[in-house]
Order: sequence, then C-alpha cells, then structure tokens
Amino acid sequence: MELVEDLELTSDVKRLVKSMAKTSFNARRLGEALEILEHVVNECELRVLSLAGAVTPSGFRRLVGEALRRRWFNVLITTGANITHDLLVAFGGGHYRIPLEFDDRLLKGHGVCRIYDIAARVQDFELLEKELRLVLEDVKDGVYSTHELIKLIGLKLRDEGSLVRSAAVSGAVVIVPAFYDSILGVQVWSLTQTRNFRVVEDLDLSFLINAQFDMKKKRAKTGILIVGGGVPKNFALQSALVAGKPFDYAVQITIDPPHYGGLSGATLSEAVSWGKVEGGGRHCTVYCDFTIALPLLFSALA
Amino acid sequence: MELVEDLELTSDVKRLVKSMAKTSFNARRLGEALEILEHVVNECELRVLSLAGAVTPSGFRRLVGEALRRRWFNVLITTGANITHDLLVAFGGGHYRIPLEFDDRLLKGHGVCRIYDIAARVQDFELLEKELRLVLEDVKDGVYSTHELIKLIGLKLRDEGSLVRSAAVSGAVVIVPAFYDSILGVQVWSLTQTRNFRVVEDLDLSFLINAQFDMKKKRAKTGILIVGGGVPKNFALQSALVAGKPFDYAVQITIDPPHYGGLSGATLSEAVSWGKVEGGGRHCTVYCDFTIALPLLFSALA
Amino acid sequence: MELVEDLELTSDVKRLVKSMAKTSFNARRLGEALEILEHVVNECELRVLSLAGAVTPSGFRRLVGEALRRRWFNVLITTGANITHDLLVAFGGGHYRIPLEFDDRLLKGHGVCRIYDIAARVQDFELLEKELRLVLEDVKDGVYSTHELIKLIGLKLRDEGSLVRSAAVSGAVVIVPAFYDSILGVQVWSLTQTRNFRVVEDLDLSFLINAQFDMKKKRAKTGILIVGGGVPKNFALQSALVAGKPFDYAVQITIDPPHYGGLSGATLSEAVSWGKVEGGGRHCTVYCDFTIALPLLFSALA
Amino acid sequence: MELVEDLELTSDVKRLVKSMAKTSFNARRLGEALEILEHVVNECELRVLSLAGAVTPSGFRRLVGEALRRRWFNVLITTGANITHDLLVAFGGGHYRIPLEFDDRLLKGHGVCRIYDIAARVQDFELLEKELRLVLEDVKDGVYSTHELIKLIGLKLRDEGSLVRSAAVSGAVVIVPAFYDSILGVQVWSLTQTRNFRVVEDLDLSFLINAQFDMKKKRAKTGILIVGGGVPKNFALQSALVAGKPFDYAVQITIDPPHYGGLSGATLSEAVSWGKVEGGGRHCTVYCDFTIALPLLFSALA
Repeated sequence: MELVEDLELTSDVKRLVKSMAKTSFNARRLGEALEILEHVVNECELRVLSLAGAVTPSGFRRLVGEALRRRWFNVLITTGANITHDLLVAFGGGHYRIPLEFDDRLLKGHGVCRIYDIAARVQDFELLEKELRLVLEDVKDGVYSTHELIKLIGLKLRDEGSLVRSAAVSGAVVIVPAFYDSILGVQVWSLTQTRNFRVVEDLDLSFLINAQFDMKKKRAKTGILIVGGGVPKNFALQSALVAGKPFDYAVQITIDPPHYGGLSGATLSEAVSWGKVEGGGRHCTVYCDFTIALPLLFSALA
Repeated sequence: MELVEDLELTSDVKRLVKSMAKTSFNARRLGEALEILEHVVNECELRVLSLAGAVTPSGFRRLVGEALRRRWFNVLITTGANITHDLLVAFGGGHYRIPLEFDDRLLKGHGVCRIYDIAARVQDFELLEKELRLVLEDVKDGVYSTHELIKLIGLKLRDEGSLVRSAAVSGAVVIVPAFYDSILGVQVWSLTQTRNFRVVEDLDLSFLINAQFDMKKKRAKTGILIVGGGVPKNFALQSALVAGKPFDYAVQITIDPPHYGGLSGATLSEAVSWGKVEGGGRHCTVYCDFTIALPLLFSALA
Repeated sequence: MELVEDLELTSDVKRLVKSMAKTSFNARRLGEALEILEHVVNECELRVLSLAGAVTPSGFRRLVGEALRRRWFNVLITTGANITHDLLVAFGGGHYRIPLEFDDRLLKGHGVCRIYDIAARVQDFELLEKELRLVLEDVKDGVYSTHELIKLIGLKLRDEGSLVRSAAVSGAVVIVPAFYDSILGVQVWSLTQTRNFRVVEDLDLSFLINAQFDMKKKRAKTGILIVGGGVPKNFALQSALVAGKPFDYAVQITIDPPHYGGLSGATLSEAVSWGKVEGGGRHCTVYCDFTIALPLLFSALA
Repeated sequence: MELVEDLELTSDVKRLVKSMAKTSFNARRLGEALEILEHVVNECELRVLSLAGAVTPSGFRRLVGEALRRRWFNVLITTGANITHDLLVAFGGGHYRIPLEFDDRLLKGHGVCRIYDIAARVQDFELLEKELRLVLEDVKDGVYSTHELIKLIGLKLRDEGSLVRSAAVSGAVVIVPAFYDSILGVQVWSLTQTRNFRVVEDLDLSFLINAQFDMKKKRAKTGILIVGGGVPKNFALQSALVAGKPFDYAVQITIDPPHYGGLSGATLSEAVSWGKVEGGGRHCTVYCDFTIALPLLFSALA
C-alpha cells in the first residue's frame, strides 16, 4: 500500500496529470491512463482509437487529427456523425456556441439544429451535400469499404484542421461501422441510388479482423483508447475477440457506469472474460467527459 | 399549476403507474410515458421501437416479443447483440445469473463471457454458429437487407419465447443498422466469404425512409419508444429528419444525462430543432433502467 | 449458476417485482431488495429508514407515513427539508406540478420556489412560519434533541397524510442530524433567539448509539433501508460502527455510482470494511430513482 | 452566435482551460467556471467554498488549504469527514492507495477501512482519538460553534499541509453544519459526556446569516464555489435565502444530474427562483469529478 500524496499545484499539464496519479478516484485513473497510453503509443503496432460522442462538432477535430498525424493511433473507429461534422467544417461550414436556454421550436424555424450547446445550420448541411457530390463525382464503379471511401474524401480536402484529411495524409485507417446511421451515410445512399458504387461495412470487418490476425501472428502488441461507448467500442473489441488477440493495453474514457448492464458502460475487466482485453495486460477506465479528459491526456502525451 | 398528489399504495400495476403521473421526478415521467404510449399504440400507423442495451440476454426477450405480437410496434430497430442473444436461446443455449464478484480471468478460463451480472457460455455461441449455418443453408444468392435476413431466420425458429420469431410471425420489421457490429454479423460475414449472398444496410435505410415518406403522404401519425440510445435511436430519428416527417409521439427511456453532449443522452426537445420530433407533439424522457421501466409500462399497457 | 428467466407480464405489483428477481441488472436488484426488506420488517428489532432527497414535496409523504404506521421501520433519519415540506402541507400549504420550461427569474418574481418539476409558494412558507410559532408556543425551557422536538410537533398535527404525525402516533423516532440546514431549522433558530429552549443533535447521536448498543447486548437483528445518500445515510451507518453492531440487512436505493468516491455512492460492500454492515449479512443496492423504486417495494411489501 | 473553436494543444494549464472555454460541453463550462472564479476571488467580499465528497483523504487537503492561504475563499463549509481525515494525517496517520479488487471482509479483518480506492487504518483513527483528547484538554467550559472549535484545533496543529491549520492561520472560517455526523463529531460527543463544553450548530447558522446580512447592508459582492452537493451546499445557499442576499457569482462542480430532483443535483438556475443565486448574476455548473476539475481550476487561478 502506497501513500496517497498531495496533489501538486503546477502550471504544467503533464506534471499535473502525473501528480494526479498519486491521488484518488478519477484523477488517479487519469494519471494511470497516461501511463498506459505511453505504452500504447510507444510499444504497440496496432493502435486503435475508438471515438463515440460529438467529438468533431465540439471543437476537438483538430486535436484528434493531431493525434493521428503524430501516429499515436493508426486505426480510428468512429460514428458517421463525427465524419459528417468534420466535413461540414472542411467544406466551409461551422459550429456555433449557443446558450442552453434557446427554444428548440424557434431554432427549427431558423434552420438551426442543436447539439446540446452547439448549433449547426441547415444551410451548412446543404453546402455539405453539394460539396460531397463534387468530391464523389469521379468515384469509380464498385464496392467500397467505409475506410476506402473516407480515404478518398480525405485526400481531396484542403482544410488542415480536418480530422478526415489528417487521417488520410497520415495513413490512419478510418472505419465507420454504422455508416448509414449518419447524414454522410444518407448522402452517400442518396447518390448511390443513381450510381454504380456501393459502400458496405463487411469489408471493414474483414480489414480489422485481418489486421488483428496479423498482430497475433507477429505476436505484436496492440492497444486501444476507447472514448465513449457505442458501436465504435464494440466493433473494436469484437475484432480482438474474433482474432483471439486480446488488446494488451486499453484505456476507456466514459461517463457510463457499469451497473445498467449496457456495453457502453461495461468495464474493461468484463472485456477480459470475453477475450477482448488481455487478462495479464493493463487497462483502466476514467469516468470523465472526454472534452476534459482528452485535452489533458493528449497535451500530456505531446 | 395542479397539486402534487400523494402516491397511492396499490397492488395494481396500471393504477400504480397512473398514480405516479401525479407525483414528481421520474415517477411522473413514467406516468406521462404511459399516456403517450397509449397514443402511439392506438393512433399511430408507424410505431417504432428502438432498442439498445442488453435486452434479450437479461430476461426481456419474451416481453418485447409480446409487445410485437400485440402490434404495439411494427418496426423494431436494435443492435446485432440483441438478435444474437435471442437466437442463442432459441437454438437451445441460455443466460445465467451470476454474482458480480466472479473473477473475469477465471471466467475466461472456464469459457464463460460476462455481461455485468449475466453469464453466457462459449459453447452456446458455438451452438449458435452451428445452428445458424443450418438455418442459412438455403438462403438464395443475392443482396439482403438486415430486416429481410432476420425475417428469414425468424420464420424458421420454433422457440415461442423468441423475439425474432415473434417479430416474423407478427409482421414486425426488425432492422439492425450496425449489423456487422455483433457476433451474428461476424457469423454471417464468415459464411458470406464462401457464398454468394451479402447483407447490406443501405436497403434498410431505403425501407425506413420510404415508410416515413409514406406516412407523410398519408398524413398518418407516427410514434416511437426509444429504449437506450446509440445507433438504434439515431437511425430511427434520422429517418424522420430525412423524410421531413417528425414523430408525433415520442418516449425515451434512458439513464444518460444530456449534459455530456452525446446523442444517447440528447433530449427529445433537442430533436425538435432537427425536425426529428414534432414541435407541437408530445414527448417525454424517463431516466430509469429499462429493466424496471419497461415491465411497468408494458404491464400497464397490457 | 441459475438461468435468467423471462420477465412475466402481470398486473400484480408483487408478482412483477418477484419476477424481476430472476432477470438482470437493476430489476434483479429490486427483486432482491424486496426479499431483504421482508427480513428487515419481519426479523429486525431496530429497523432504520434513512431518507435523503425531496421525498415529502414530491408526493411520497403519505407513502412513507404508511410505512411507519405499519411499523416497517421504527427509526427515520432524514433531512430538515423533508420535515419542512411535510409540515408545509400539514399546515395547509401545497406543492404544485410545473413544467421544466418555466423561467426561474419569473418564478422568483411570482413568489414561487422550484424543486425540479415542483413549485412551492413563498406564501406557504410564511404560513408554515406562523403555524410553527403557534405549535411551539408552549414548548418548555430546556434542551431538546431533534427527535423530541419533531415528536412534539407531530402530536399536535391533525393532517392524517402527514409523515411527521404518522411517526408520532406510531412511536417511530424521527432524527434530523443536520437540523439547522433547513427552513425548519432556521425557523426554530429564529424562535430560540428570544426563548429558552435549544435544539441540539448530540442528543440524537446519544439516542441512536444507545439503541445500537442495546441491539448488540440483546443480539437482536438490525436492518436498514437507505434512500439516497447524504448525511442521513452516514449518520445511520456510523451509529453501527460506533456501537460495533453492523447492520444485518441493508438495502440502498440510489442513483449515485461508486466511482466518484463520495459517501452517497459508496457500496454496501465498502461499508463492510468499516463494520457498518455485517460481512456475513445480506445487502443490495438498486440504482433507480426512489420515486419509482419506493412505490414498487412498498406496494409489494403491503 | 460565436464559432466553436479548435482546442489548443498546450502544456500550460491556464491556457488549456482558457482554450476549453471556446469549445463545448463540460470543457466549455470549465473555462467559464474559471472566468467566474476570477470574479469571485477579485471582487467578492464574502467568498464561500462549499465542499462535500472525500476531499481530504484523497490527496486534495493541501490544494484546498493553499486556496485558503491565498484568500481565494474566506468561509469553508464542509463535512465532518473532511475535517476528520485532515486531522488524521495532521496527527501522523495516512491514507493509502489500494486496488478496487481488495475484499472488504478481509480489509475489515486487517483493521482497514475503505473509501473507494483509498484505505484508512483503524490504528490511525485510534491515534486521532488520542491526539484529539490532548488538543481539546484545555478547552474551557462553554458552548462553541463548530467554527470556533475547529479554529481552536487548527491553531494547535503543526502540519503545514493541514487544511484545518491553513484555515486557522489564514482567518478562514470553517463551518461543519452536520457536525455529529462524523468521527470527529463522535469523538467530541464522547469527550463532552464528561466535560462541560458543548458544540452546537445554531451558532454557525447565526454567524453565516449575519455575515450575509452584513454583505447586504454593504452592498458587497458575494461568490461561491460549490464542490459536490449535500448539506454544505444547502447550508451555504440557505444563508443567502434567509438574508435576502443572493450570491452574485456561483460555480458548481458536481456529477449529480438535475433530473432526479435532489438538492445535490439542483441547477443554479433553480436556485435563482429561491433567491439563493442572483438572477442577473453569473453562474455555471461543471459536470466533472472534483479530483480533475479542482486541480485544473486552482492551477489556472494560481
């Protein structure tokens, strides 16, 4: 048993997080998460970032893009909404800070859609639709995985802050396992009604399972940072299960408690029973809004 | 302003929920949810049940199946896991009640996978794989939506408690928008590597958007019960957005608060700004574990 | 390992809760809580109800009063606010159901105070003040515990729905460990500035610790139902610790998760390490709004 | 409507928190909280820190002590447990970091009490008892408020890291409104059985209400930082209500959502309806574990 130590008052982010590691509760977990992420970044060959929640509209698209450009992760699994809102900005739209008191019926009347304390404008979605059509104009006939399509798009973007572009130029694979559950998916679906290309997710499943089998064969280390739960978390973890290659390192940032039984709040210990996370490996869960935990972890890692 | 009334001590479930409507906090919301669901069941032509969370392994597959057999809902949108665990039982497997204290590494060693306080055995997953191969043996070549495939399976089941079978015999459409994010999806993916059929979700998107357009044309009422958040919630709501036909009635059962900004916890008021829920309609959110709220609502509705 | 069983659709509350016991997550815990409470009510000599949260303004004062009249509990530990709002009604005031959208600045202007979706009127607080002065007019000089003062008040009330009156006529002891943290406390404080009586909580501490020592001497069983956390929970549990007589049976209804480290969310297993709950005893925590869980448990117990 | 801006990756804590203010969700609130706290520290004459949760055992006693030494706050309202665990260390004991897996029955057998992931030893509580007797040996007969007693103790301590000592030497008033709900309270209660001094909280109520009346008379600004909810929060806010002097600035750090109706999760907007917080003032709530939010805010303030 080691002593709880007094938190150090410091202006340095990394030092602050390191000091948290010797306190308690979620501060301690945040400190421990940093240690585990250092292993992920430095030792692992497959480094997965699973990202649910409204990360790109809320001001964190560049931060995550930077994490990919620094090669901290080489696979990103996320929601269609996160890709949609990244593209919305890349194509010239924006997200706006609004007070919670705004009336939703009035917002509707003004063509403004609300994400908690963020506003997105219908006109920006229309711009997205128009630009996306242009970008996808020369896609060849065929069947595409979501990561192939997203790479195609990313390589055509010029917005340096774009997550999708950062992934494309860094070689990070971006998978959207519930592709048609998003405005991006709906736009692509709409386009493909009159075109001869199709986007299917079974190809993404093939890719990720093969990647895991490859790690298993090589006995390479694998690590994952899970932000939020949902499909991205499950899709990432099930690939480890299928390949029989549990993640050696795993960090989870969530605010979902385990006691309601859902997958999003499921502990990483529970994942050990499934063979998704290595029993002898290292894992930790931080209960904190990602908007606070991610900047701390990534600033400390940088 | 009406008076808060004293809750009535009664042995009758419906009377208890009706009495809750005149109290406060989530009891009041539960009472209000019952009123709205009565409208959904009695007035709406499109009646969607969106279901995230571990509903079928936890003892609620027959309850939900009963809701479909009674035609309370005619579209079910859910996770692949809920279909997987329904089939696991339909094919002869089972789920077991276990204490939380069990060691996950030992469970792994014994071929037992944990879902909070439930155990599922690896051997039952193997049985599922074997039986599923038989069931899908005569599937003809072609491209299938998830709801077509699930109907095919449901019609072949004999387990009366099965949710999938109940849907099939009741004509309820079952959509799994993140199909490959589940053991069922992995099994189908594995089969289709050597077969000439493919399961794609864009066809489900077409189906649901068309159904919504149809409702719009007819000026028919639409209603939804959202249990948990995730992809099922978003997929259901986005179809209303795309078709320009907001849901007239909406009830949400969740434990996710809105203030972390994720879609799962997003309020139904926020959904009004997107055109997913009707501004002049009725909606309410109950913050409660579905394992408690669903039995109360469904018993009171029955 | 016993099988998870299908929840039974039934109109009978007790049967529903008993059926929940064979399912999972918080429904299972609710079923287990009922079993433990049956032991508390039937076997325990000291039966404590610890009550935090806005129980009396929200429509549950009569329900809890009924639990005391039926002798399910003989000690109630609660907040001053719960006594205040019970008296507010007993003296002729009321609580009102309001929508969440009301503007708090306007409410302030109209002399209306909000408790989430409940309104209380300033004029009713003034009525409370006036009536309380009358009730306490003939209190003799001296030093009183909170439970003595509350009994004095309860015996003078005529409102049959009153929790305070129900306690007084049933012989249940009502302790308010943070007495001056309430409008009732402020009113008494105001009165005692010009009177010669004083209310002190160390006498309540004496009473409860002695009661626990008594149980220990007699080797009698003790049980507790903890609703919400806060001071009532800690005050109840610390008496067990001080007397060296851990509770044999304990049920906790809360929505606070353990992982933020606060006492309100602390598990009953943690309480075992302190000697507050018996290691070999039975305990369970239900994560649910009390407005839903209490009516179910009390209706099933009745 | 201002644009959501990209979070800046920086090693400087203050700059990071300032950058968060232009993003979304709880990061934005944390940034806003910093702005409001700057007003509290610089403009307010009454500066209250309300502190629930296990702050002193978890590694944050020196941090809070530092906040008092810097005069950021001149009144601290907290739980008896926080004073107890501060004294436990000041008298030579310690708190230990432990894994969550430890068995609570075994811990009990080893004389170790658990607070989530912290251990405290029974022998250190015995040391506390012994030392406290010495410290209180020469307390004169009479009736004491909790803040007078705590000051007496603080002035006798030599541990520079002690929160109680820091308060005493800085002139900050420390109020414990539920004094007898703690091991400290029990020890004092035990001592006073054979002594002629008594600790009563009505004197603390007098002090705080008078302080508020004083602010009102002077038209001085008042501000509050509420960490966690419970009795400290309510006791602080009710003093504003009683004196008719709502707080001009208020920040709340909590993880309790409002929708369960309890005081701990109640919004500061709701407090406006009661006259506890100024309608035209500035207030904000950050949903975050205090172990993460406090170090960020205090490091940025420093």
